[in-house]
Amino acid sequence: MAESVTRMLLAGHGGGGPLAHGEDVTLDVDQVLIEDATGSMACMQFEALGAERVVVDPTVLYVDHNVLQIDDRNMAEHHYLRSFCRRFGVRYSPAGNGISHYLHLERFARPGGLLVGADSHSTTAGALGMLAVGAGGLEVAVAMAGHGFDLASPRVVRVELTGTLPDWVEAKDVILELLRRHGVRGGTGAVFEFTGEGVATLSVTQRATICNMITETGATGAVFPADERTREWLAAQGRDQDWTALTADHGATYDDEEHIDLVALEPLIAVPQSPGDVVPVREVAGTPVVQVCVGSSVNSSYEDLATVAAVLAGRTVHPDVALTVTPGSRQILDTIVRGDVYRDLATAGARMLEPVCGPCIGIGQAPTRGQASVRTFNRNFPGRSGTAEDRVYLCSPSTAAATALTGHITDPRDLGAFPPLPAAPGPDPAVVDGLITEPLPAVEARRVEIVRGPSLVPPPLPEPPPAELDGRVVIVVGDDVSTGDMAPDGAIGMSVWSDIEACSHYLFRRFDPDFHDRAREWAGQGTPGIIVGGDNYGQGSSREHAAMAPLHLGIMVVAAAGFARIHRRNLVVQGIVPLLLAADADRERVSVGDRWHIAGLADAVRSGAEELTAEVDRGEPIALRLLLSRGERDVLAAGGLLRRTREGDRPPR
Amino acid sequence: MAESVTRMLLAGHGGGGPLAHGEDVTLDVDQVLIEDATGSMACMQFEALGAERVVVDPTVLYVDHNVLQIDDRNMAEHHYLRSFCRRFGVRYSPAGNGISHYLHLERFARPGGLLVGADSHSTTAGALGMLAVGAGGLEVAVAMAGHGFDLASPRVVRVELTGTLPDWVEAKDVILELLRRHGVRGGTGAVFEFTGEGVATLSVTQRATICNMITETGATGAVFPADERTREWLAAQGRDQDWTALTADHGATYDDEEHIDLVALEPLIAVPQSPGDVVPVREVAGTPVVQVCVGSSVNSSYEDLATVAAVLAGRTVHPDVALTVTPGSRQILDTIVRGDVYRDLATAGARMLEPVCGPCIGIGQAPTRGQASVRTFNRNFPGRSGTAEDRVYLCSPSTAAATALTGHITDPRDLGAFPPLPAAPGPDPAVVDGLITEPLPAVEARRVEIVRGPSLVPPPLPEPPPAELDGRVVIVVGDDVSTGDMAPDGAIGMSVWSDIEACSHYLFRRFDPDFHDRAREWAGQGTPGIIVGGDNYGQGSSREHAAMAPLHLGIMVVAAAGFARIHRRNLVVQGIVPLLLAADADRERVSVGDRWHIAGLADAVRSGAEELTAEVDRGEPIALRLLLSRGERDVLAAGGLLRRTREGDRPPR
Repeated sequence: MAESVTRMLLAGHGGGGPLAHGEDVTLDVDQVLIEDATGSMACMQFEALGAERVVVDPTVLYVDHNVLQIDDRNMAEHHYLRSFCRRFGVRYSPAGNGISHYLHLERFARPGGLLVGADSHSTTAGALGMLAVGAGGLEVAVAMAGHGFDLASPRVVRVELTGTLPDWVEAKDVILELLRRHGVRGGTGAVFEFTGEGVATLSVTQRATICNMITETGATGAVFPADERTREWLAAQGRDQDWTALTADHGATYDDEEHIDLVALEPLIAVPQSPGDVVPVREVAGTPVVQVCVGSSVNSSYEDLATVAAVLAGRTVHPDVALTVTPGSRQILDTIVRGDVYRDLATAGARMLEPVCGPCIGIGQAPTRGQASVRTFNRNFPGRSGTAEDRVYLCSPSTAAATALTGHITDPRDLGAFPPLPAAPGPDPAVVDGLITEPLPAVEARRVEIVRGPSLVPPPLPEPPPAELDGRVVIVVGDDVSTGDMAPDGAIGMSVWSDIEACSHYLFRRFDPDFHDRAREWAGQGTPGIIVGGDNYGQGSSREHAAMAPLHLGIMVVAAAGFARIHRRNLVVQGIVPLLLAADADRERVSVGDRWHIAGLADAVRSGAEELTAEVDRGEPIALRLLLSRGERDVLAAGGLLRRTREGDRPPR
Repeated sequence: MAESVTRMLLAGHGGGGPLAHGEDVTLDVDQVLIEDATGSMACMQFEALGAERVVVDPTVLYVDHNVLQIDDRNMAEHHYLRSFCRRFGVRYSPAGNGISHYLHLERFARPGGLLVGADSHSTTAGALGMLAVGAGGLEVAVAMAGHGFDLASPRVVRVELTGTLPDWVEAKDVILELLRRHGVRGGTGAVFEFTGEGVATLSVTQRATICNMITETGATGAVFPADERTREWLAAQGRDQDWTALTADHGATYDDEEHIDLVALEPLIAVPQSPGDVVPVREVAGTPVVQVCVGSSVNSSYEDLATVAAVLAGRTVHPDVALTVTPGSRQILDTIVRGDVYRDLATAGARMLEPVCGPCIGIGQAPTRGQASVRTFNRNFPGRSGTAEDRVYLCSPSTAAATALTGHITDPRDLGAFPPLPAAPGPDPAVVDGLITEPLPAVEARRVEIVRGPSLVPPPLPEPPPAELDGRVVIVVGDDVSTGDMAPDGAIGMSVWSDIEACSHYLFRRFDPDFHDRAREWAGQGTPGIIVGGDNYGQGSSREHAAMAPLHLGIMVVAAAGFARIHRRNLVVQGIVPLLLAADADRERVSVGDRWHIAGLADAVRSGAEELTAEVDRGEPIALRLLLSRGERDVLAAGGLLRRTREGDRPPR
């Protein structure tokens, strides 16, 4: 049978063949990516698994998030993570080497491989023709211990690209076009596979921009073929040997198809407060702007920064605008320093930041309230910038550069002809090789002592679901609530991510400052809280803290109109039952304080029964559905994935 | 009469002639430096003065402190400050242009001038042969309005330099040698004037290192002659026209003299937790280190960074060490990017930070508790790094670089021969000229609207001292308490500096977390708090918040064994009476909660009576002294400098 690249990748990692509807496939994992923010919980859970050594190589831990160090906690975490890596055979990349996704692309990602990353943007590596999927920390820890990775078999959507991008239109506009079409839910359950003559016109880092942000559609991943461009790029990285051709069979079948004519695209922009709210730049042109930020795990490539430099060369940033520029990696930083790009940016007035995640997750550069900040980043969820009432727009480097010059949102085509790019000096691929530590030999590793500061608190361990649940609705939230509303973004909030008790104080704080105290009080009274959510509940970041914090507050079930993939799985592996509201309209009649009685909960989890009912103290019953794979039922019945793995019968693969 | 450079500078600015003992001289101000951290209070007070325009040009406001932007407050302050500058005719340098002291040296400081800066390290500009003095924000605001600057006439100490520095020994070791000799109090009331053949061996930025840290001795300032090195440096800055020769008359007399033989110096280091606790590096060599930070308003020059790069070139930083490097200015950043220095540092593994104050004031890069952080900075007061229980060492770039390589404190002479420095490309002096905004013309300026976010709260206004005081001792602190223990350092603490109510919660929190509530409660009961301090009370930063926060909590007097110059003056100008304990031993018998009755307080302020007595409810009376200049008495009697200036009879000069 003629196969897509995606199906080849699945088959090559134990996920071939026909699948029962709704079932998971357990995949063999070639590579693991961890970053420091999600990493401390992932690593503490790996320790709790009792495994002796990480068996997936490369497993790489990148410190790129919590690096501002506004108090002593960040560095204490770095020390923990470094000692963990030495103890268990993990490669460690300290702060300053770059953003995980760029670094991983440069040094480790390879065609044909399978990557699981404790970061939702791990999808970036799909640019190199690998299946790359984000997951919660515990699932990643289990994969590190060699148990494989469970994934709901995706539908594969073909995206045919034709033509070439016009001047001033960029890869960012391609992914924004997909977001314009699909919004933040339309990709759920899909892997987008790119084909067609337009593919060859896109560089690997342009492809990476598209793969990175595919997660904003709700998708599982995105895959590009491994072609001549891929080979050239790997050669420039000194990794010729990692190349292998990987293209779809002629006549391969797909679950769905669509077409993007690159020539027809124009500059697009996501307006506040969702990456799915995309409009042409010209529709919001003229909006005054106080800040422009270039970089993050998208649009921090050499070409991205060179584009901005070309626009700004010999000019200065508008005085009403603060411009920041973040290179994606130390290699990119070195390249822009050897060429003209760094100088052109710095002398134009840009604030040149370190190659770390930085403002993308609100770790520094929080803007003023209510004023427009234009960013080349991937998300603009409310408050993610570190500022309540922020107004963040997402666009391409060209649009950002034009806006930085004029002081208001500007369609870059208004600047006239596209300027010549400065000569590219080419990367020095070895620049971080001495700065990412190799795994210690096992004998030496066993002698390493783990360094554990007081801010690192092992996470809570769930119990199996109760036979029946008597709880109270503790909050009702709307559609598309992101995990950033559950575990905080920003330098202040993220500094407590290694301590779920501290984290739990931020849970839903933006919606209801009393949430934490109420949930805790009710759980203490024997009526645990029930969260009622809308569609796409838990979109965005893979942070499992968004499941651990409710667990810590005694919450056992979440009932929502729909769940985002990673968060749904995080709820399951952390022992919280994800229930679907059978009728979305029922949300309208749910109020905080309602008492729900759900009979047969544990039985349903064990038996696979899909229908449940919540008897409500002050209203009609609410019909609920419980859709779980066989593996998920086992996990929940065991009291979460940690117990299931530790006590279970599934050995390392 | 043969004059020193210092006396020439005083005389040239209205401060010549004989002075009555203990009296102030009012000086004509040529230049004003403000930074953003102290700036919002200074500017709000300038507004309260009711002046129409800043009359000192250049007055430059540099944004270099609160630039991490961990929430929306920093940027709201930048918007306020920028609009203030536009409204009142001030030059504005946004974040990213550099650290105020380096920038001011490069673009504005000039031989023969007089600079007042709202930052204690404003003394840096003494390197160019000017009198440069730090002060609190209100005194600076008053100077900006054209009322001159009151300074207690200093004693002038000649420091004769002979010989040349050996390899691996640097200007930092010269100032550390002075701190070794004098500690943090020995310079009080002095201007150190450097003379002798050794002067010509020191570059302007080496001189700046010495002048910057002279403030750590308690001194008023430091002055170098303007010589051929000065002329060359100004020429490289494109400012030949600003040069004028300025050297001491042959046979000039000084109040005191000392001698430093540069050849005899060795690498020195200040150990935790005072810049005055200086020992040879070899005495603490071998101490394990987790962090090395290069840069700040000292040791961020091209030569400093080139030295570190030369040591690190072709090697990598020890894996146990996080190394950060901060260039002093955008000009220096541009220079190291054009040469090899940036690349050598980055490829060795350094985290390359923006040219901002950063970790020096704990704005980022807070180290782990209890572990050694080695820094080329100027202060290591407890907690200044942003970490409680920090262990910060201060040293030269050579010592820092050697330590970064080995992972433990290292005498750089152990590395063998001093490495060749990379070729210096020379500065591009114009690199920030388009990025520091010029003053608007007056007509246009008057139309500018001030942008005032909710985090900007005008400071409290004091009342004249009461006829008699019935108060309670609210805290007793030891010697050398710094203003960092009164108004907080660090990214979190400094983000509230525009709001004294918020600031006041940090007052003495390190010593006593209940201080704020107790002081407020007792003041509410009609018994305002009395602070009892040791010697050198209020050393360090010029932040007037350290006086405003007590004022906000109802405190009217501070009784201490001795005061640091700037903080003492800040107390006076904010309407708090600085009393001296006549017998230091009396501190031993003071307890929190003691009730003091001080009769005749207002009379003493007005009359100049120096003897006062505190009747104590549960012990013997305590003898106090009130030493005030004529001008200070007028200020206190009027209820602070703001009222005195607004209502007073002293017109702008």
